[in-house]
Amino acid sequence: MSRTDKRAADALRPVTFQRNWTSHPEGSVLIEFGATRVLCTASVDTGVPRWRRGSGMGWVTAEYSMLPRATNTRGDREAVRGKIGGRTHEISRLIGRALRSCIDFKALGENTITIDCDVLQADGGTRTAAITGGYVALQDAVTWISDKKIARKPDRILTRSVAAISVGVVKGVPLLDLCYEEDSVADVDMNVVCTGDGDFVEVQGTGEQSVFDRGALDQMLDLAAKGCRELTGSQVKALLS
Amino acid sequence: MSRTDKRAADALRPVTFQRNWTSHPEGSVLIEFGATRVLCTASVDTGVPRWRRGSGMGWVTAEYSMLPRATNTRGDREAVRGKIGGRTHEISRLIGRALRSCIDFKALGENTITIDCDVLQADGGTRTAAITGGYVALQDAVTWISDKKIARKPDRILTRSVAAISVGVVKGVPLLDLCYEEDSVADVDMNVVCTGDGDFVEVQGTGEQSVFDRGALDQMLDLAAKGCRELTGSQVKALLS
Amino acid sequence: MSRTDKRAADALRPVTFQRNWTSHPEGSVLIEFGATRVLCTASVDTGVPRWRRGSGMGWVTAEYSMLPRATNTRGDREAVRGKIGGRTHEISRLIGRALRSCIDFKALGENTITIDCDVLQADGGTRTAAITGGYVALQDAVTWISDKKIARKPDRILTRSVAAISVGVVKGVPLLDLCYEEDSVADVDMNVVCTGDGDFVEVQGTGEQSVFDRGALDQMLDLAAKGCRELTGSQVKALLS
Amino acid sequence: MSRTDKRAADALRPVTFQRNWTSHPEGSVLIEFGATRVLCTASVDTGVPRWRRGSGMGWVTAEYSMLPRATNTRGDREAVRGKIGGRTHEISRLIGRALRSCIDFKALGENTITIDCDVLQADGGTRTAAITGGYVALQDAVTWISDKKIARKPDRILTRSVAAISVGVVKGVPLLDLCYEEDSVADVDMNVVCTGDGDFVEVQGTGEQSVFDRGALDQMLDLAAKGCRELTGSQVKALLS
Amino acid sequence: MSRTDKRAADALRPVTFQRNWTSHPEGSVLIEFGATRVLCTASVDTGVPRWRRGSGMGWVTAEYSMLPRATNTRGDREAVRGKIGGRTHEISRLIGRALRSCIDFKALGENTITIDCDVLQADGGTRTAAITGGYVALQDAVTWISDKKIARKPDRILTRSVAAISVGVVKGVPLLDLCYEEDSVADVDMNVVCTGDGDFVEVQGTGEQSVFDRGALDQMLDLAAKGCRELTGSQVKALLS
Amino acid sequence: MSRTDKRAADALRPVTFQRNWTSHPEGSVLIEFGATRVLCTASVDTGVPRWRRGSGMGWVTAEYSMLPRATNTRGDREAVRGKIGGRTHEISRLIGRALRSCIDFKALGENTITIDCDVLQADGGTRTAAITGGYVALQDAVTWISDKKIARKPDRILTRSVAAISVGVVKGVPLLDLCYEEDSVADVDMNVVCTGDGDFVEVQGTGEQSVFDRGALDQMLDLAAKGCRELTGSQVKALLS
Repeated sequence: MSRTDKRAADALRPVTFQRNWTSHPEGSVLIEFGATRVLCTASVDTGVPRWRRGSGMGWVTAEYSMLPRATNTRGDREAVRGKIGGRTHEISRLIGRALRSCIDFKALGENTITIDCDVLQADGGTRTAAITGGYVALQDAVTWISDKKIARKPDRILTRSVAAISVGVVKGVPLLDLCYEEDSVADVDMNVVCTGDGDFVEVQGTGEQSVFDRGALDQMLDLAAKGCRELTGSQVKALLS
Repeated sequence: MSRTDKRAADALRPVTFQRNWTSHPEGSVLIEFGATRVLCTASVDTGVPRWRRGSGMGWVTAEYSMLPRATNTRGDREAVRGKIGGRTHEISRLIGRALRSCIDFKALGENTITIDCDVLQADGGTRTAAITGGYVALQDAVTWISDKKIARKPDRILTRSVAAISVGVVKGVPLLDLCYEEDSVADVDMNVVCTGDGDFVEVQGTGEQSVFDRGALDQMLDLAAKGCRELTGSQVKALLS
Repeated sequence: MSRTDKRAADALRPVTFQRNWTSHPEGSVLIEFGATRVLCTASVDTGVPRWRRGSGMGWVTAEYSMLPRATNTRGDREAVRGKIGGRTHEISRLIGRALRSCIDFKALGENTITIDCDVLQADGGTRTAAITGGYVALQDAVTWISDKKIARKPDRILTRSVAAISVGVVKGVPLLDLCYEEDSVADVDMNVVCTGDGDFVEVQGTGEQSVFDRGALDQMLDLAAKGCRELTGSQVKALLS
Repeated sequence: MSRTDKRAADALRPVTFQRNWTSHPEGSVLIEFGATRVLCTASVDTGVPRWRRGSGMGWVTAEYSMLPRATNTRGDREAVRGKIGGRTHEISRLIGRALRSCIDFKALGENTITIDCDVLQADGGTRTAAITGGYVALQDAVTWISDKKIARKPDRILTRSVAAISVGVVKGVPLLDLCYEEDSVADVDMNVVCTGDGDFVEVQGTGEQSVFDRGALDQMLDLAAKGCRELTGSQVKALLS
Repeated sequence: MSRTDKRAADALRPVTFQRNWTSHPEGSVLIEFGATRVLCTASVDTGVPRWRRGSGMGWVTAEYSMLPRATNTRGDREAVRGKIGGRTHEISRLIGRALRSCIDFKALGENTITIDCDVLQADGGTRTAAITGGYVALQDAVTWISDKKIARKPDRILTRSVAAISVGVVKGVPLLDLCYEEDSVADVDMNVVCTGDGDFVEVQGTGEQSVFDRGALDQMLDLAAKGCRELTGSQVKALLS
Repeated sequence: MSRTDKRAADALRPVTFQRNWTSHPEGSVLIEFGATRVLCTASVDTGVPRWRRGSGMGWVTAEYSMLPRATNTRGDREAVRGKIGGRTHEISRLIGRALRSCIDFKALGENTITIDCDVLQADGGTRTAAITGGYVALQDAVTWISDKKIARKPDRILTRSVAAISVGVVKGVPLLDLCYEEDSVADVDMNVVCTGDGDFVEVQGTGEQSVFDRGALDQMLDLAAKGCRELTGSQVKALLS
């Protein structure tokens, strides 16, 4: 089976990071996984949500959204419908959990960092691009905080890095980093978040069209680990430039 | 480390199914995983959602909710707040995906089965109890359909069974079927949905407090597979009685 | 005219109270009026709504809701529709007024008791079952408060008891405690809340299908008073056990 | 005890009806009960709600609302808060039930009449003024229908008239037609809807501050019946002018 | 071209102001522009919105709404739909801006005046009637404040007056103060807010059916200025009476 | 007075158009007015809103939104708050009216074009950039329709072009194309939409901080006309490239 874009089964699409793509946020990254394009911004606010006040600990939260015509057919705006859909909720929560795993909240102090991930163009893998780009925006925001708000080195606040990638089984073949065309026919779909050290932060595999056995699961985890390793390398490079 | 209730690390809590617990629905099961108590009902409606009309295929959907005082402190009703929260959305979607994996939609024809999972008392594992009990309610509803609406044998419509269980790592020890007290201190939390044949339908592992390596993941998957096997046995027994 | 279940015109359906049906709430009662089954929980919170702060007086409020498949055909969840319907509002307000009539708010101090009445199965009379069971949950919560929060005897806080029952005129015959089948063909429908001493707290009679004269009203009030007396007896017994 | 405005205990406030107060609606009545001023309009639409289609029967519904500064302190608009409050729901439903009792839906055919009751100034008794004025608007709309839409005499469609009044017990004395100052200190508050023939359509008595015995209830019912008789007379006069 | 009501192209419809039309508000004016009838009330509250607290400055805000049957066909209530429509938002904001231009917020101190403009009957020009009548209600409220809350002369708080009128081009002819019938066929529609001294506060011209050149714009501005001058005169007269 | 960026009072900021910035929409333009950056997409759908069906005429509508961190401080998402704010409504309506003035709806047939204008970075003038860029996206979509859906030349459907610019008075000096820093201190703020032929489509001038006389208005209109002429030139160039 050959992939739409001739990639090998274990190859990522071209990945690019454009830091400071917009100028207002403390962190702002335009990330591309092939044709998928997500603007990730990190905003720093003094204070934390009510339930966390007085704890001395900070907070990180994320909001994911798609522009109405990021996809092939226009979707209604959630603001117009007056409510957030289940898919949006699910993805926002995933991004938030992944990025919270990087932070020492004591070291952050009572500050909140909000990661906004707005999908400008979608071609599969938007949530994993959001996490991978969101991490870079988060690191820029933490550097800003260290510089402007609290006299602590960034690596006291940021204890690890994360990256995420999708894997799936299409016509029996495990594939890394599915584009929309592949994703829409996959039997199994999995999103994996790894730390820069290769540990897992989140593993979500779903077989709505089909079920999968332990062997398939193991193959997908191997592919995902490889993909996350490569993304970690790209993040490091982007953050050095 | 000994568990609150003296269970072995790989032991389930007592599981009970009360079929026909209420009389109106086509399927109605009160399931208990220890002190967790969920009412799962299956409602059959003629027709399918608009986007599926004319396809000749049926639909299965699920809605999860908690009574305000199912938990230790009272939570606001989502109806009063006027919106569904992210956690509720996420769990409803998980239950729906899991139960759709059991159904041959062509055989079901243009009928919809809605599984309502209302948590009457919560003590950890409510989503996995909902899936495990929801399956039994679903099978009762499919039997009802075969009897009353379409001349097809239930096993033409229902192609497999599913059960679900939580696993986690608490103080370094992998545990099966966490109660609330264990869940609230777990480093890693995982929910696994398996078919009666031992395949995976959904695997969701999260390490918000911590990260986890491949070894821990493998141990958790082994425990979960064991738990699901036992739950499948309990489902079979409940459906025969 | 004979009733569906052969009851006499002035007979209640079998009534049962199961106290402590769930373990988290300060009061928790599963009440049944025949096939109608309502879970009534009482939750104690420190503090009162904003408009009552600083008054030194407590508050009691109630929320009524039906599970989607408590009835013969599935109803949409109000949380999903994003708003509370008029019927739900009307009944919640009725329950709240009825239970507030039992309380000396000065003696309660600035504490709030919330009575949640969730209908698990509906067969007519859900609002009167909710009030009657809600009272028992309220008394258990008041006992808890007296024990744990404020050194006042329960009967200083709880000044009277209440119970409620429906009456109606079906084919010209006044009937006590209508089941759904009777209620749906009643010309006149009335809900009456009485104190344990036989006084009225609330009288609501409606003749949407028909109108009614003073004679019919008097007969219905007599029946209701009798029904409430018997329910008061059952409450006393339940609270002693 | 003398009343604020020196009225006898069984006297109504001055009542006025201004028909055709606005020109667009099929019925439009500005009713005043003393300082209480409600604009009641009746709007005719072809067709009925979905659940009634094909029945050959019409429908009557009502919506009640208060202008933000109809009262002594400004209330938030429900449109701004984004939801209808419980009190508004309760009153809208009461008005709807009362006015539906006047109509032969078969004779009305599949047409809907919506009665909008907007309180321009509130001084107690707004819901009873709304019903009493709403009836006059309804009759004007029925006359319009008979004239313009269906060749049936108005009295085939409108089978009876209704009027409504409040009664209450203030410092032990039963009073008719309470103004706001009286209503706010009443021990018992009752709203009664009667037909022009003196039958009851709806009886709602509430003793939130206190409870009431059968004797007090009887006295209030007598007062209310007298008040409704007088209002019926005023309606007849208004409709002749 | 002759106008529906035989007015000259540059003539206003009859304008009337009824001050103190309702008794609760600090300012209450029923204004009529021909058949257009708007109730404008001004409510004074101590304090300002959160974002303005501690500034020592007051605030003026406005809310516009139409009764459902103010128009020829009944519109849904925004409270029932659960959201404010775009037109309502746009007009409320226009009225608020116009009336804020009259106030010295320092002199007002941390007090808020809310102008509610409820259209009881609509025949074109409702927003301009709302501003013109709202100003009179505002002045009455400022007089009340000067009298009751702060020892400052009204003309220290109220620095100028405003009035507003619509103009349009119908079949090529510029017309002042369009009624609904004219407005619905206008090529260009313009709303102009002027101060009593003849300066502009707001100019909004729209050519949805057509476009307009500088000459037409100039003619419309001349007409509007004349209309506002006359309305200013009427306001002065109303405030003296 | 010299401007922040040394521009002459009558100079535009650098304007760029990037057509086909995203690949899914029928028209997709990233427009920049200095640091203001708006993504304008045009989406074609078969069919028109319900109220326009059967008319044979098409429809054009617009939705404006800002990403949460397009501005200097993060704003809440309207989807999260569950409602569209007044400013968003007002601007969406303005864009829609402006772009509808370009279209012959008969020639368009029963098709709808939705213009989404999402502000990625804001520095003043976002609504005028949205109209100016939205027009280019609209023209691309009309070309697509002419090519793919209806055999009519684009210039039969698109009857004129529009562009828009802001003008204001800052410290007494009329300025063209205000950036945020200028806008926030402007006494008068005006947005003008012109056709390519120099006619006006919409004129909106507001003097919340101050009022303005006819002379100032004339100066601002002159400046705006000049700005729109230059933008029209840029649009033509962009559409040729």
